[in-house]
Amino acid sequence: MELLLLLLGLGRAGGLRAGERSSSALEELATEQEAEESHRQDSVSLLTFILLLTLTILTIWLFKHRRVRFLHETGLAMIYGLIVGVILRYGTPSTSGHDKPFSCSQENKLFTTLLINVSGKFFEYTLKGEISPGKIHNVEQNDMLRKVTFDPEVFFNILLPPIIFHAGYSLKKRHFFRNLGSILAYAFLGTAVSCFIIGNLMYGVVKLMKLVGQLSDKFYYTDCLLFGAIISATDPVTVLAIFNELHADVDLYALLFGESVLNDAVAIVLSSSIVAYQPTGENTHAFDAAAFFKSVGVFLGIFSGSFMMGAVTGVVTALVTKFTKLHCFPLLETALFFLMSWSTFLLAEACGFTGVVAVLFCGITQAHYTYNNLSVESRSRTKQLFEVLHFLAENFIFSYMGLALFTFQKHIFSPVFIIGAFIAIFLGRAAHIYPLSFLLNLGRRHKISWNFQHMMMFAGLRGAMAFALAIRDTATYSHQMMFSTTLLIVFFTVWVVGGGTTPMLSWLNIRVGVDPDQDPPPSNDSFQVLQGDGPDSERRNRTKQESAWLFRLWYSFDHNYLKPILTHSGPPLTTTLPSWCGLIARCLTSPQVYDNQEQLREEDSDFILNDGDLAVTYGDTTITANGSSGSHTVTTSLDGRRTKSSSEEALERDLGTGDHEVTSRGTRLVFPLEDNA
Amino acid sequence: MELLLLLLGLGRAGGLRAGERSSSALEELATEQEAEESHRQDSVSLLTFILLLTLTILTIWLFKHRRVRFLHETGLAMIYGLIVGVILRYGTPSTSGHDKPFSCSQENKLFTTLLINVSGKFFEYTLKGEISPGKIHNVEQNDMLRKVTFDPEVFFNILLPPIIFHAGYSLKKRHFFRNLGSILAYAFLGTAVSCFIIGNLMYGVVKLMKLVGQLSDKFYYTDCLLFGAIISATDPVTVLAIFNELHADVDLYALLFGESVLNDAVAIVLSSSIVAYQPTGENTHAFDAAAFFKSVGVFLGIFSGSFMMGAVTGVVTALVTKFTKLHCFPLLETALFFLMSWSTFLLAEACGFTGVVAVLFCGITQAHYTYNNLSVESRSRTKQLFEVLHFLAENFIFSYMGLALFTFQKHIFSPVFIIGAFIAIFLGRAAHIYPLSFLLNLGRRHKISWNFQHMMMFAGLRGAMAFALAIRDTATYSHQMMFSTTLLIVFFTVWVVGGGTTPMLSWLNIRVGVDPDQDPPPSNDSFQVLQGDGPDSERRNRTKQESAWLFRLWYSFDHNYLKPILTHSGPPLTTTLPSWCGLIARCLTSPQVYDNQEQLREEDSDFILNDGDLAVTYGDTTITANGSSGSHTVTTSLDGRRTKSSSEEALERDLGTGDHEVTSRGTRLVFPLEDNA
Repeated sequence: MELLLLLLGLGRAGGLRAGERSSSALEELATEQEAEESHRQDSVSLLTFILLLTLTILTIWLFKHRRVRFLHETGLAMIYGLIVGVILRYGTPSTSGHDKPFSCSQENKLFTTLLINVSGKFFEYTLKGEISPGKIHNVEQNDMLRKVTFDPEVFFNILLPPIIFHAGYSLKKRHFFRNLGSILAYAFLGTAVSCFIIGNLMYGVVKLMKLVGQLSDKFYYTDCLLFGAIISATDPVTVLAIFNELHADVDLYALLFGESVLNDAVAIVLSSSIVAYQPTGENTHAFDAAAFFKSVGVFLGIFSGSFMMGAVTGVVTALVTKFTKLHCFPLLETALFFLMSWSTFLLAEACGFTGVVAVLFCGITQAHYTYNNLSVESRSRTKQLFEVLHFLAENFIFSYMGLALFTFQKHIFSPVFIIGAFIAIFLGRAAHIYPLSFLLNLGRRHKISWNFQHMMMFAGLRGAMAFALAIRDTATYSHQMMFSTTLLIVFFTVWVVGGGTTPMLSWLNIRVGVDPDQDPPPSNDSFQVLQGDGPDSERRNRTKQESAWLFRLWYSFDHNYLKPILTHSGPPLTTTLPSWCGLIARCLTSPQVYDNQEQLREEDSDFILNDGDLAVTYGDTTITANGSSGSHTVTTSLDGRRTKSSSEEALERDLGTGDHEVTSRGTRLVFPLEDNA
Repeated sequence: MELLLLLLGLGRAGGLRAGERSSSALEELATEQEAEESHRQDSVSLLTFILLLTLTILTIWLFKHRRVRFLHETGLAMIYGLIVGVILRYGTPSTSGHDKPFSCSQENKLFTTLLINVSGKFFEYTLKGEISPGKIHNVEQNDMLRKVTFDPEVFFNILLPPIIFHAGYSLKKRHFFRNLGSILAYAFLGTAVSCFIIGNLMYGVVKLMKLVGQLSDKFYYTDCLLFGAIISATDPVTVLAIFNELHADVDLYALLFGESVLNDAVAIVLSSSIVAYQPTGENTHAFDAAAFFKSVGVFLGIFSGSFMMGAVTGVVTALVTKFTKLHCFPLLETALFFLMSWSTFLLAEACGFTGVVAVLFCGITQAHYTYNNLSVESRSRTKQLFEVLHFLAENFIFSYMGLALFTFQKHIFSPVFIIGAFIAIFLGRAAHIYPLSFLLNLGRRHKISWNFQHMMMFAGLRGAMAFALAIRDTATYSHQMMFSTTLLIVFFTVWVVGGGTTPMLSWLNIRVGVDPDQDPPPSNDSFQVLQGDGPDSERRNRTKQESAWLFRLWYSFDHNYLKPILTHSGPPLTTTLPSWCGLIARCLTSPQVYDNQEQLREEDSDFILNDGDLAVTYGDTTITANGSSGSHTVTTSLDGRRTKSSSEEALERDLGTGDHEVTSRGTRLVFPLEDNA
């Protein structure tokens, strides 16, 4: 709690000062000075973190400048965190006298507010939490270490939301939707499988430890399952950064990114459900069918509730930005966008759902609908705003992780457990990637090749989410052991696995962009090369069949109804809705739709697919490049496509069938049509 | 403290939950549920604020859309705040049982951490502050009202810094520097005079109240002076917004904006010094020369210290951005900029100075130096980032003010005091604007006309800073009365005075832009029109003499040494430093300086003077407008000016003498030179 205030440079000196001026005794001056001293220390600790981040940024720059790829910024942040942790641990004096706790026995009731009468004056105290009897001496420990220890809720309520929102907001829409089925399978089934397998393996390890006598306290089956849920959230930030930089295969990128974004959500909800698993009666740690189904119910309830919250605020924002002319005032628009996205989080928390999950779906909805209604300035503003927040929050978490290895006071490192955990996460990932890929390949036309499967297996890094879930509850022996192990797994995967991404890419023959300094390569081709090149019509067929009926149903619903209602694009509602809805359809359809729907849809796809992606230009236009890339000129003439505008046609285009003609000719260039007079 | 956590949607449920899982009793489940309930309530209260802001944004949009100018967004935010305050006050149940405080007598020592033993388990409590005995019953009051009451330090540590930083970062450099002398005089002397006069008048009022018997508690002379300091911070945000929109006179704008920015800093430091005034001995409220000089020393110390901190971190940021190629990675650059600016605040707080003041000077330094080194993308990113933060924070404060009128629990409205205060602030402002203007006009060539003086008198609105200073300490009777009065003064000035700006502008014959939709008018001319048009050489003379010798000294130092060291612009150091510094000079001068110094300097001035301002184009070039404003074409030929590059010459140009030739010809248009092949 201390550091939470500190995170904002917030002293508690003020309240005290206010309280004390009511009379002017000398003893109070001393308290005031103490409070000021505490505020000063808070500032110093926070300053430490900021300098750490500054240092990280400067070193990252050096690395990027020199094209060093084996260490990502997050890995670097952890290293600096480690160094500062060592200094704090061994370099600062280890006791502080003035905070000696005062013990006061009282009967059974617990209060959240205490009033203490000290020689006639009343002081208000607030409850900070319970301290288990064995750790009372910890309270008296090193002041500085205590100052740099955050309340775990900081991660869930301050640092994760911008990270997760940004992930949702920057989901590359087209490739995400093209692989939606597989992504959902990996994220839901995969995470559940991984959680279950890791949980069971770890239970075996725990049993073994008990036999060997290495376990000094209780470790239940539910704890093992919780560990499985915690550690199943992948965060291949390092791998994705390298993919981005090298312009590696887009579909593989979409699979990995989509999986990691969604399985964060699944892991949070899964761990909440496991915590909620509370068998009735005395035998509290055996299997109980009722409690199990209650947990499943909790999972479904929280997940769908959070999803709804996110979608609803996204839709409300889309409607507001569509039907007001707020886009004339980008500042107001950006502020509204920010506030609405934040309110998702609060709304979900207020309703008892999970804010972070709601924020993720809000981000996806905002990108899919609201983004189209924003002014050009607001688009870049919102993108950049969340990019900066995401960057800061992510590096903060990773440097805190480095720090926590030395400053966290209750580490329990058990070699057997750690080795077991490493094997378990390896097996857990293998047990969902390969079987699921096999099953998915039965249905997919774009098969997920063996090399891709190996790469996905390899890219099972753990990161911010696993850490945040693990640090959330470190009260018991088992949780402390789980936290220490998670920390080591994150270190290992980010440094070793992350550092090996580039060699792994070349070893697995996964095609990367020819030269990162050039325009991104026509990435779809690289996928086609792996799959073997067929004639055009065959390709189109493939793409059509690849998308399952459920997805096609959703797509046509989205294209015909949701997009026209929520944005300025899509076909006019007057054509898609039955005729008796004529009046409503006319009210909801924005006038822009009739004349420039094509143009707007194009702008839309342009952002979401910002790097290494294809975009379609409609109509018979000659597009000329200007500016720095003036040497590349592409001439397109996709005749006869302008008139057709059914959802089938749009789906084809959106899924990238129609644009092979453009991309196969050379460098891809996209410009808004109005440039051509 | 509660609401501070709440501001971040931050529950304290986590800590509790962690503490409780250590054993599984039913009584703890109840506590956990209570904690979750509290977290939920926090989310709801914060959600209230966010919805309030959203509503404000939508209404502002409507107002802007309809060109309604009598009510500014801040005024609107206050109205909505008021409405919600009324609802909370009279619409929610007024008691809550479960937070009953528990009293526990103890001897003389005060602790910041308490450990309470409740039936064998230990709970940690932290000190929140003293409660004066008369207000103990308040603690038991309406839960919701307590939830929406912020710790006053939130304003100083979270909401004010972005507002103040943004003010510093967006100071319109040229007009600010052209009027620097006057601005400093108004801000320092003016605020001191105003504080002193208001303080003394209020002391008279208090004496009167004592005679009439309207005063029920102590009210010292220092309290009156503190009130003077609190209420001397002007915040003409409404007036400035209208000035901006109508493109009113730039010099008047610079005077008002500069004064309001700097006098915020002066008022903070002044109030700290008055609080620090602590006469020795028993007679604690009489005049004490030693204590007085100590206060003056505190003032000077805090002010110069905070100034130094801000300047130093600004300079460090400038050096870092100059000597690294960070501008290739705008995200890193923006993150660094943000972190460095934040670290100013923490550094100042850690050293015992005032963070908000340091942040102001940091903002000015960043705009003056660092801004020139940033990449184009980072310039807009940083500008937009702080613009959004400033917007949100400002409207938050104003809506909180509205709320506080009804939810604050210790209001003391005394009609005599309030009327006295209104008269005092009127007289206080008159007593510094008119005499100071008279004195300044003795030295100025651009006289500050009577109409300008009346407008400045009129524009003495009070706002966020006065509120934040007043709410910081509301422990005593006198401070509560001061707070309530400040609140009313802010309401009155923002609504009534702010609403009357447009009529006042036309009544005082202050020239505004012909049509806000057109290009900004050549604003310097409008000033010249008022002053009478002289021949060119005379104008140049005027500007030269207008700037005092001290300022010229600073300017040439800045131009010859600081700019070349800290940015890529200015003359090469090799020409300005003595020859024995040759090596250092060569190291510090960036290679760009030699070939394109002129160009860069121009880009520099382009931002800071973003609206309604003039920019100079150097050399004999023909500039052609492109894009939307293609119809305006300006041809300039400022012959023979290219070769001269002394600091005198640059000063002239920067102060706007050289550019009359351009501006007097028509619409001003500025483009980077590289556009012209």
